[in-house]
Amino acid sequence: MPAAFPKISKIQFEGPQSKNPLAFKHYNESEIIEGKTMKDWLRFSVVYWHTFRNQLSDPFGAGTAIRPWDDGTNSVKNAQNRVRVAFEFIEKLGAPFYAFHDRDVAPEGKSLSESNKNLDAVVKVLKEEQKRTGIKLLWGTACLFAHPRYAHGAATSCNADVFAYAAAQVKKAMEATQELGGEGYVFWGGREGYATLLNTNIKRELDHLAQFLHMAVEYKKKIGFKGQFYIEPKPKEPTKHQYDSDAAACLNFLREYELTDHLKLNLETNHATLAGHTMQHEMEVAAAAGALGSIDANTGDPMLGWDTDQFPTDIYLTSQCMLTIMKMGGLTTGGVNFDAKVRRESFEPIDLFHAHIGGMDAFARGLKIAAAIRKDGRLAEFVQQRYSSYDSGIGAKIEKGKTDFKELEAYILKKGEAAPNTSGRQEMLENLINEFI
Amino acid sequence: MPAAFPKISKIQFEGPQSKNPLAFKHYNESEIIEGKTMKDWLRFSVVYWHTFRNQLSDPFGAGTAIRPWDDGTNSVKNAQNRVRVAFEFIEKLGAPFYAFHDRDVAPEGKSLSESNKNLDAVVKVLKEEQKRTGIKLLWGTACLFAHPRYAHGAATSCNADVFAYAAAQVKKAMEATQELGGEGYVFWGGREGYATLLNTNIKRELDHLAQFLHMAVEYKKKIGFKGQFYIEPKPKEPTKHQYDSDAAACLNFLREYELTDHLKLNLETNHATLAGHTMQHEMEVAAAAGALGSIDANTGDPMLGWDTDQFPTDIYLTSQCMLTIMKMGGLTTGGVNFDAKVRRESFEPIDLFHAHIGGMDAFARGLKIAAAIRKDGRLAEFVQQRYSSYDSGIGAKIEKGKTDFKELEAYILKKGEAAPNTSGRQEMLENLINEFI
Amino acid sequence: MPAAFPKISKIQFEGPQSKNPLAFKHYNESEIIEGKTMKDWLRFSVVYWHTFRNQLSDPFGAGTAIRPWDDGTNSVKNAQNRVRVAFEFIEKLGAPFYAFHDRDVAPEGKSLSESNKNLDAVVKVLKEEQKRTGIKLLWGTACLFAHPRYAHGAATSCNADVFAYAAAQVKKAMEATQELGGEGYVFWGGREGYATLLNTNIKRELDHLAQFLHMAVEYKKKIGFKGQFYIEPKPKEPTKHQYDSDAAACLNFLREYELTDHLKLNLETNHATLAGHTMQHEMEVAAAAGALGSIDANTGDPMLGWDTDQFPTDIYLTSQCMLTIMKMGGLTTGGVNFDAKVRRESFEPIDLFHAHIGGMDAFARGLKIAAAIRKDGRLAEFVQQRYSSYDSGIGAKIEKGKTDFKELEAYILKKGEAAPNTSGRQEMLENLINEFI
Amino acid sequence: MPAAFPKISKIQFEGPQSKNPLAFKHYNESEIIEGKTMKDWLRFSVVYWHTFRNQLSDPFGAGTAIRPWDDGTNSVKNAQNRVRVAFEFIEKLGAPFYAFHDRDVAPEGKSLSESNKNLDAVVKVLKEEQKRTGIKLLWGTACLFAHPRYAHGAATSCNADVFAYAAAQVKKAMEATQELGGEGYVFWGGREGYATLLNTNIKRELDHLAQFLHMAVEYKKKIGFKGQFYIEPKPKEPTKHQYDSDAAACLNFLREYELTDHLKLNLETNHATLAGHTMQHEMEVAAAAGALGSIDANTGDPMLGWDTDQFPTDIYLTSQCMLTIMKMGGLTTGGVNFDAKVRRESFEPIDLFHAHIGGMDAFARGLKIAAAIRKDGRLAEFVQQRYSSYDSGIGAKIEKGKTDFKELEAYILKKGEAAPNTSGRQEMLENLINEFI
Repeated sequence: MPAAFPKISKIQFEGPQSKNPLAFKHYNESEIIEGKTMKDWLRFSVVYWHTFRNQLSDPFGAGTAIRPWDDGTNSVKNAQNRVRVAFEFIEKLGAPFYAFHDRDVAPEGKSLSESNKNLDAVVKVLKEEQKRTGIKLLWGTACLFAHPRYAHGAATSCNADVFAYAAAQVKKAMEATQELGGEGYVFWGGREGYATLLNTNIKRELDHLAQFLHMAVEYKKKIGFKGQFYIEPKPKEPTKHQYDSDAAACLNFLREYELTDHLKLNLETNHATLAGHTMQHEMEVAAAAGALGSIDANTGDPMLGWDTDQFPTDIYLTSQCMLTIMKMGGLTTGGVNFDAKVRRESFEPIDLFHAHIGGMDAFARGLKIAAAIRKDGRLAEFVQQRYSSYDSGIGAKIEKGKTDFKELEAYILKKGEAAPNTSGRQEMLENLINEFI
Repeated sequence: MPAAFPKISKIQFEGPQSKNPLAFKHYNESEIIEGKTMKDWLRFSVVYWHTFRNQLSDPFGAGTAIRPWDDGTNSVKNAQNRVRVAFEFIEKLGAPFYAFHDRDVAPEGKSLSESNKNLDAVVKVLKEEQKRTGIKLLWGTACLFAHPRYAHGAATSCNADVFAYAAAQVKKAMEATQELGGEGYVFWGGREGYATLLNTNIKRELDHLAQFLHMAVEYKKKIGFKGQFYIEPKPKEPTKHQYDSDAAACLNFLREYELTDHLKLNLETNHATLAGHTMQHEMEVAAAAGALGSIDANTGDPMLGWDTDQFPTDIYLTSQCMLTIMKMGGLTTGGVNFDAKVRRESFEPIDLFHAHIGGMDAFARGLKIAAAIRKDGRLAEFVQQRYSSYDSGIGAKIEKGKTDFKELEAYILKKGEAAPNTSGRQEMLENLINEFI
Repeated sequence: MPAAFPKISKIQFEGPQSKNPLAFKHYNESEIIEGKTMKDWLRFSVVYWHTFRNQLSDPFGAGTAIRPWDDGTNSVKNAQNRVRVAFEFIEKLGAPFYAFHDRDVAPEGKSLSESNKNLDAVVKVLKEEQKRTGIKLLWGTACLFAHPRYAHGAATSCNADVFAYAAAQVKKAMEATQELGGEGYVFWGGREGYATLLNTNIKRELDHLAQFLHMAVEYKKKIGFKGQFYIEPKPKEPTKHQYDSDAAACLNFLREYELTDHLKLNLETNHATLAGHTMQHEMEVAAAAGALGSIDANTGDPMLGWDTDQFPTDIYLTSQCMLTIMKMGGLTTGGVNFDAKVRRESFEPIDLFHAHIGGMDAFARGLKIAAAIRKDGRLAEFVQQRYSSYDSGIGAKIEKGKTDFKELEAYILKKGEAAPNTSGRQEMLENLINEFI
Repeated sequence: MPAAFPKISKIQFEGPQSKNPLAFKHYNESEIIEGKTMKDWLRFSVVYWHTFRNQLSDPFGAGTAIRPWDDGTNSVKNAQNRVRVAFEFIEKLGAPFYAFHDRDVAPEGKSLSESNKNLDAVVKVLKEEQKRTGIKLLWGTACLFAHPRYAHGAATSCNADVFAYAAAQVKKAMEATQELGGEGYVFWGGREGYATLLNTNIKRELDHLAQFLHMAVEYKKKIGFKGQFYIEPKPKEPTKHQYDSDAAACLNFLREYELTDHLKLNLETNHATLAGHTMQHEMEVAAAAGALGSIDANTGDPMLGWDTDQFPTDIYLTSQCMLTIMKMGGLTTGGVNFDAKVRRESFEPIDLFHAHIGGMDAFARGLKIAAAIRKDGRLAEFVQQRYSSYDSGIGAKIEKGKTDFKELEAYILKKGEAAPNTSGRQEMLENLINEFI
């Protein structure tokens, strides 16, 4: 192992509070907050595809990544070797979880059976490394968008054979996830959408997608896989329009096809903003529906219109995320997953450390800030007070469904006008948040 | 009548095919297409608020509109006089429908009872004019967003009295709509959303909104109102984020609160694009759910981020709308409503004619183009053929739910790879559309 | 005075470090940073129009603002009384500057001469209050966009009389600014742009605008006004497209028409983001051209497409602004102007305090952070080191213009390949910034 | 040749007016419009990179393109063979021009000298094919963004060696362009911008870019290259922010560094819209500055935030482009260049035909529409009339600079108010355009 990937091993990494930029300033896995460790609140996960497979190409240029441990081939041996490096990295970082796509960990073969064999060979090493390090699998998934076969989608492809192929691939990926003790399985419909409405039958495609998920639910039951299923919203890119465009679109789909009991949402900050929502909006919408499962913590650039998948460093964002997560008592099977990539210009191995350390620290700090805001209590008190007119009188009748238009009209005709509003105090509340940043 | 509003009466307006810009080039109400008249396919509606009340102010400047028939007062008499002009205008235009908000037709009084009295006085004149002209009411609605009382929303206000006031107002607006034989009633949640999540309890607000709509459904039944209820999506503006942000969000809400049997969607082009969707996407999503009720035909400017409410003149857009409408057999209770305003720089009365004539002609042309594309058949044939792998074999089993992951895996393991895809032919289809433009 | 506007006078306002939300947590006008007081670095300015005239209406609803000192009339007396309140407010706040539009301080009359008389009457009171309090005028300007006469623009109107009117109005506003010892005068071309290219001759309109500014320069010289002229970029709204769309467009215009010696830029965060740039980008572009004059510190909402003019509370933003301002040695005649309004839902007088205190504190904190980053030195050192290949050898020859394509080709043909790049370290630098937040 | 690339040769392609989708419906190269042939007005150009090199990969998936004539290797022989196919394709299409990047036509070697040798070998074949077919080179350019060496930019790289390499590469590309009789040379600064302001010195980078262009101008003179230089604006992607962000930013840069005599603009529709402008805006801005050189006709999707480089099919867009081009008397050295790619789902060779035919026909139709609008005269007449107040009286004095603020004030004080405006008639003009669509 040492000879093959010297760079990761040699990178100096120090404990908390060090002046070294390669040290956490805020994340301390054993620190207790509201009765849980930071590790348990945050459940950090490193993604295999961006961190270990992304060559940092973009539509205008070739990959720039320097990865000395990688021999550049598509061999199983290289794939296995890469697993060792990956776990060394995650271990140094102290993250308790990782996540993978089937085709990121093991090479696609010339046929499905060859691909499956390749996957088995790598899963074996993943299992060894999980055992050696204690690092666990947050969730697995299948890559149903990179191969040309999926050009028109996978479960929503116009080609029934492609649907069948996708089913076979997900079956195997679920088995691998189960084998590795994965705590969940994600459905991200990479190309489940359309390039143009001119050639598309939306209804038929959505029916197929629902069939696909019902088969997955059935197969999960059949093999006894206990992990949580997630569906991941994204509005567009690579397609012009994806079906699972945001939290509401996913929930609508799940309700329409009676899948709400089986899938929660895996929300991503960058996908939220591409859909025109803040991440906190998406999290609150999902949480209100009891469907907030896990988050992909990577952010986008509000000035750019594509998925930049940057590591999160904005403390306002991480505080907002943690406020919602703490309000719901924490993620259970889910985690804070870094579906993030270093910039194409940050091509050295050490940049992987800077990036993850920055993201983990930003969330650790967000957790501390959220905890402080909760302890302070003024914010929650303000919100509760704001709706207090519904706690008694006509408001309570409204909430309980014990009134109707006629009574409400009589009530107001008698008063002539509603009781005056009070200010929403947005500026004061923004200042209050700044007291904790 | 003649003395009070000479300008409308004097505007020269000629029949189809005239060189006069104030004449339809394409709209001919009696022309038959696929067995229906153009009038029946298009069901044009003029909105009262923009066309007769909008002073053409914007956030940076005062109103510019020259409306010689309006005495500038907030009197009931002026309001009644305005109705006469409005019907003269709609009559000259030949539009079969109009739509209104309660507070646009009649002035808000000092108390709810005074407002109700004012509304009654104007409804009387509306009824007379409907009778005189044969023009009908497409839908009515209540303005629950302009008055400061609704600053924090109406049904989602944090103030229970405001909820009660909104209920009373909707009750009266429904009664007026019924009195006028309205074919529908629209709920547009002007401020049903939030300015900041910091002070907002989304779940509690949505529960209130659902209570409100259930009360409306109940009251509708009670008074025997037969019109269709609609909910109108919009993502933002004036609020930072509205709850009914797009078709999917509305459908999700209706499903969650068991309201799908009672409300269809009233979709607006400008709201669709503000939400990051094309209008056709929203229409197809609604139609797939059996919930496409009516449309607001006004467009926005793709370069601008606010609701510009422009009259539609893009033939591509109108063709797309009509393709979807024809596919579903036409709008039934709904119509093509111009929730559009002339530009602030187009402040003369004659501009109202140019604007409506242009919009009506653009839709008439869109109807003809859509009909020609349907008659030609190549587009529909291409789409049907594209999904033909689901018409038999493994595809048919998938659609019927007669297979599972295991069988599909076996099928693909045997084949090794899926049958090759064929091109989506987007460019060819775009050229095909251009043959008809 | 006390009786007329009790609410401002009664608002409790405490000194620094108090727990009272109505107290600065960071701004301390006498604190010394890099040899200057915070007051001198920040040069805060309160705007008259938003803070004292904005009724908080929006395109969907009436004003909500409660302003007990205002009698709601358009009288000169009310305008004069309002000046007393304004200065009481600014004084309580401790801001050293204010800014105004002519029509915000004094009512428009029935003719230009009446408007001028009204302005004189109010300027008299402004002068008294300036003297009484020591508060100074950062800049004045004329409102050339609100009145219907300016519907097609002012200096770029298609109506020559409107150009003349605008000239007369600016003349008077410049005189008033001079009378009040204003340190600058701003040209914001509220409607200098177009609604549609179909009716517009861009070249002719820009020629007119240049003529207008040259006349202003000439008149400034004539009356001996010593203040700095500024031009303010904004890309759109209320027009579809404004000519002064961003810093680069303004600089291009100034260069083309030989106005660079006479005008600097007044940059606004919200306008920057509407144009697709970060504020720091705009500031760096202006500073690189020696044209960064003053800033409007109000921000927008990255999810919304219109000018929300919110008070700045994001510490990242304020730190970035202050890093650029400190790098250029501070604003000289300019300042940090709050062209910001409270939310429509924040309609009580006390919200004006929360808003300004929050904005001032956010900038004070940004100043401290920027100073700390500068003192630390790592960021500047990294940037300098990054370009060090230009400090000697072939790089130095390039910078000095002492080489050509032929020599550079020979140099590379000999080397075969360029020396390897090093990582841009974006993630490390973002973490470094977070050390100071 | 026939054996190697059968698919292009076999594609059926018919003359104008055929029902075959692979036939022009509108483009007829010899049709005369305002004294010029359609061929001369339109000067169509096919781009080498997208049409012959783009494998149709995207950030989420591998290439899908089926190109039977390509052996998949990076050999010079394959590159030469590809030239034969390219010219066969362009010839079948009847486009008079093509455009290329150095690295698209010939493979990058292990050293600059090897790359240069490869380029020479391909240029030889390009020259043969140009001679054989009469097809000409619209412009050449160098690819300064794909190779990892250009990760931090080319002329704006922080690495002086990279600047030198770029200079050497441009030198050679200019020589190749000259050798092939190219009518122009384009500078598109693929990565001339920044990923983050944290590590960037904008001023120093812009100074380098100006040095680079001055060296290019000097070298052009030295070798006697007569082609036109162009600079191509784009706001972002792949970088977070490019320096040449739009027409105004380019003009500002050219003016600042005294390069206006040497470079015109090459404008692209997709880049215009990414910058928040319509293409017609950018064209009018460039034309007003006498700097409109050439256009890249490919469009984007207004709902998507990245460069989709789609073939233009919107007749409104092409009519607008042609109205501006006809107004300036036609492009001289420039052309209508399709910097466009087929969709990833349109992966068959025949889709290249559909795409180009559609784009060429859309522009041919735009040309006919623009000519008809010009012949009709109403639009131009309306615009001229709109500014007529500047043709005499006070307006003429303003245009001639024969008046000043004092006289204008006196003029308005005497009148009291400006003469009333007339409506901008946007709706009427939009209807007028629709008469010709």
